[in-house]
Amino acid sequence: MSVAERLAALGVTLPKAAAPVANYVGAVRTGALVVVSGQLPLGADGKLAQAHIGKLKPGAPLDAAKAAARLSAINVLAQVQALVGDLDKVARVVRLGGFFSVEGGHEALPAAMNGASDLVAEVFGEKGRHARTTVGVAHLPLDAICEVEGIFEIAP
Amino acid sequence: MSVAERLAALGVTLPKAAAPVANYVGAVRTGALVVVSGQLPLGADGKLAQAHIGKLKPGAPLDAAKAAARLSAINVLAQVQALVGDLDKVARVVRLGGFFSVEGGHEALPAAMNGASDLVAEVFGEKGRHARTTVGVAHLPLDAICEVEGIFEIAP
Amino acid sequence: MSVAERLAALGVTLPKAAAPVANYVGAVRTGALVVVSGQLPLGADGKLAQAHIGKLKPGAPLDAAKAAARLSAINVLAQVQALVGDLDKVARVVRLGGFFSVEGGHEALPAAMNGASDLVAEVFGEKGRHARTTVGVAHLPLDAICEVEGIFEIAP
Repeated sequence: MSVAERLAALGVTLPKAAAPVANYVGAVRTGALVVVSGQLPLGADGKLAQAHIGKLKPGAPLDAAKAAARLSAINVLAQVQALVGDLDKVARVVRLGGFFSVEGGHEALPAAMNGASDLVAEVFGEKGRHARTTVGVAHLPLDAICEVEGIFEIAP
Repeated sequence: MSVAERLAALGVTLPKAAAPVANYVGAVRTGALVVVSGQLPLGADGKLAQAHIGKLKPGAPLDAAKAAARLSAINVLAQVQALVGDLDKVARVVRLGGFFSVEGGHEALPAAMNGASDLVAEVFGEKGRHARTTVGVAHLPLDAICEVEGIFEIAP
Repeated sequence: MSVAERLAALGVTLPKAAAPVANYVGAVRTGALVVVSGQLPLGADGKLAQAHIGKLKPGAPLDAAKAAARLSAINVLAQVQALVGDLDKVARVVRLGGFFSVEGGHEALPAAMNGASDLVAEVFGEKGRHARTTVGVAHLPLDAICEVEGIFEIAP
C-alpha cells in the first residue's frame, strides 16, 4: 500500500499545508533531511477547534490532547508532502518533538503524544519508528494545547 | 551584497561569539550542518539588558520580546561566523527554535519570534527561509525572556 | 582509552537502553547522525528515584538536578550504544538538549545541565564538545525533574 492509500484507509485527508504568516516556511530540505516547523492542531478549515485550545491539567480528558497531537502530526505530514510531493519518498520518520501546554502537571503527557506517534506508525509502518521528545510547556501559540515538529529522511 | 554588507546596512554588528562557561561549545559542525547552541539576548557587552529579563505575560509589551528575539538571533549568527568564518558560506538557514519565558500566556508568542525570523530574512534573503518552532516555557537561563537556537546548512 | 574504559574509570555502568512503551524508539540513525529520544533520569532498575521527581524551584538543591541530568545523559549514551553497538564509533557529540521541570525559576538551570555536559566531556574528551540548549519547562513525563535528548555523529 502506498502512503496515500494508508491515509485513505485511515480516513485521513491531508489538509493544505498551513502557510506561515511570517518570514519562515513550513518545512526545509537539507540533504536527505526534511525539517518541519512546529505544527499546531489546526483543522482542515485552518482553525483551532475549541477542544484543542487550553491546557492539559490534572483531571483533563486525555482524549482531546491525544486527538490534538494526532492532528498536529497530520499537519506535519501535510508539510512534508507539500515540500517533497509524495510521502512514499519518506525513507524514515527520524524524530517527532511534542510540546504540550500544561498547567499543574498531567500524568498522561506521553500518552497524549502517542496520538502523534500512533498516526505515523499507522501511516509509515516500520519506517515510522521515530525518536521523540515530549515536554510540557507553559504556553503555545494561539493557546493551542499542543505543537508537534518533525524530522524526516527522504529516499535518494 | 555579501552578508557582511547586509548586516552593515542593517546596522547590525555581530558581537564576539559568547564563550560557553562550561563543557559545551557555541556551535558544532557535522557534515554540511552547523548546529548552534541556544543563545540568550546578551548585548555586545555580554550582559542581559534589564528589558530582556523576565517573562512575557498578558499585557507585556511585544516590542521588548521581539527585540530580544532579534538579539538572540544575532548571537546565533555570531556563533556561525565564529565557526565557519564567513556567513556567505551559509547555503540555507534550516531551522530556528525559539523559547520564550511566559507567565499566564501571551497572544503574541509568534509575533515575538518574528524578531528572530525577520532578522535572518533580512540578512539571508531566500536562503533565510527557515523552519521554526516557537514555544512558551516556564523559565530560561539568567531569567532571560527568550532563547534562540539554530541549524544552518553550509555550502560545500 | 576506549569509551568503555573511560566509563569504567568513571564508575559508570550503562543501563539496558530503556524500551519505549509506545510507537517510537529510543534512537534513530539517519546518515551519519544518531538522533536520541528524550531520556528521563531512570535508574538502572528502570525507575525514577524520589530525588529525581518534582521541580527545580527557588532554594532547591542543585546537586539532585545535576545528578539527574548526568543520569539522563547516561541513558542517552545507552541508547546510542544499543543502536550502533560501540561508543568508540561516536565521532562527535553534536548536541544535547536539556529540559528541566521548573517552578518559580531557579538560578542554576545551566549549572544543572552541566551534569549532562560534564559527563559527555569526561567520556568523549574533545569529541564530547557539543552544542546545547537548556530550558525550564512546566512539566515532564513521570513528573521527572529533567529530560535530556541528543544528536551524535557516527564515524564512517
